[in-house]
Amino acid sequence: MLIRDAVYGDSQSILDLIHELAVYEKAPDEVVATIDDIRGSLFGASPLSFCKIAEVDGQVAGFAIWFLNYSTWLGQPGIYLEDLFVKPEFRGSGIGQGLMKTLAEICVTRGYERFQWWVLDWNEPAINFYKSIGAIPMDEWTVFRLSGDALRNFAKQPNK
Amino acid sequence: MLIRDAVYGDSQSILDLIHELAVYEKAPDEVVATIDDIRGSLFGASPLSFCKIAEVDGQVAGFAIWFLNYSTWLGQPGIYLEDLFVKPEFRGSGIGQGLMKTLAEICVTRGYERFQWWVLDWNEPAINFYKSIGAIPMDEWTVFRLSGDALRNFAKQPNK
Repeated sequence: MLIRDAVYGDSQSILDLIHELAVYEKAPDEVVATIDDIRGSLFGASPLSFCKIAEVDGQVAGFAIWFLNYSTWLGQPGIYLEDLFVKPEFRGSGIGQGLMKTLAEICVTRGYERFQWWVLDWNEPAINFYKSIGAIPMDEWTVFRLSGDALRNFAKQPNK
Repeated sequence: MLIRDAVYGDSQSILDLIHELAVYEKAPDEVVATIDDIRGSLFGASPLSFCKIAEVDGQVAGFAIWFLNYSTWLGQPGIYLEDLFVKPEFRGSGIGQGLMKTLAEICVTRGYERFQWWVLDWNEPAINFYKSIGAIPMDEWTVFRLSGDALRNFAKQPNK
């Protein structure tokens, strides 16, 4: 297994993995990102996010996409893992752990105290894996989202 | 009420609001950020996060701190709200809503589809407010965190 930084030429493989993960997460129709979106956001002049690719025998086996978040309590950034996916045929050989370890090492090298991500509550294999590496579920918090038409309507409302 | 971008000279007020919010969130000892951390991360050459200040009669009444996250499904960034706080003596007059609306407007102006944040599950006033503006709790997701010694230990583990 080789873990390396993604490059521009990986864009189609990355988009394919995003689609595969969305199918696994039971939301295949929610991926609207295009190949140009991926090229621009990961490999533009000011990347919005970053990608590590895991390769086995020259084949793309999985990926991790992440960006920097920020904690006011710590006054410093941390890593937020947006997507982690290993193709089914490559599972069980430590690739997911290898990708997670690579990001953990970036945190340690840069002095970041926190590495975070979300997990779907029904995704037990993932939850067990994350607990096994020492991660803790932040059960007392709930994520809220304002999006689409609700977001546009709220932005238009007159001030009180 | 005036909502404006925070400036370098607001750094101490911002740190004070971070502390006040941490007390409200029952975690007063978790704030380790220093004034230099705030100055560097909000007002350095490459800001990690951004702050809007709400003022009433020239006094700082509240703030919102946010940064850009990234969605692989959308292939675009969105706004993640890290902290929102209105001082108790200024509550009930639409300041929280004004700050949220300002960030929603940034999303709409830039074409971002998502505005997100976390809420503590016991914080009913906040949850009711967020629902009233059209936000939806992402109940099927749980945030995981790997941090501190657990993070450093995992990063040191040998690969499988």
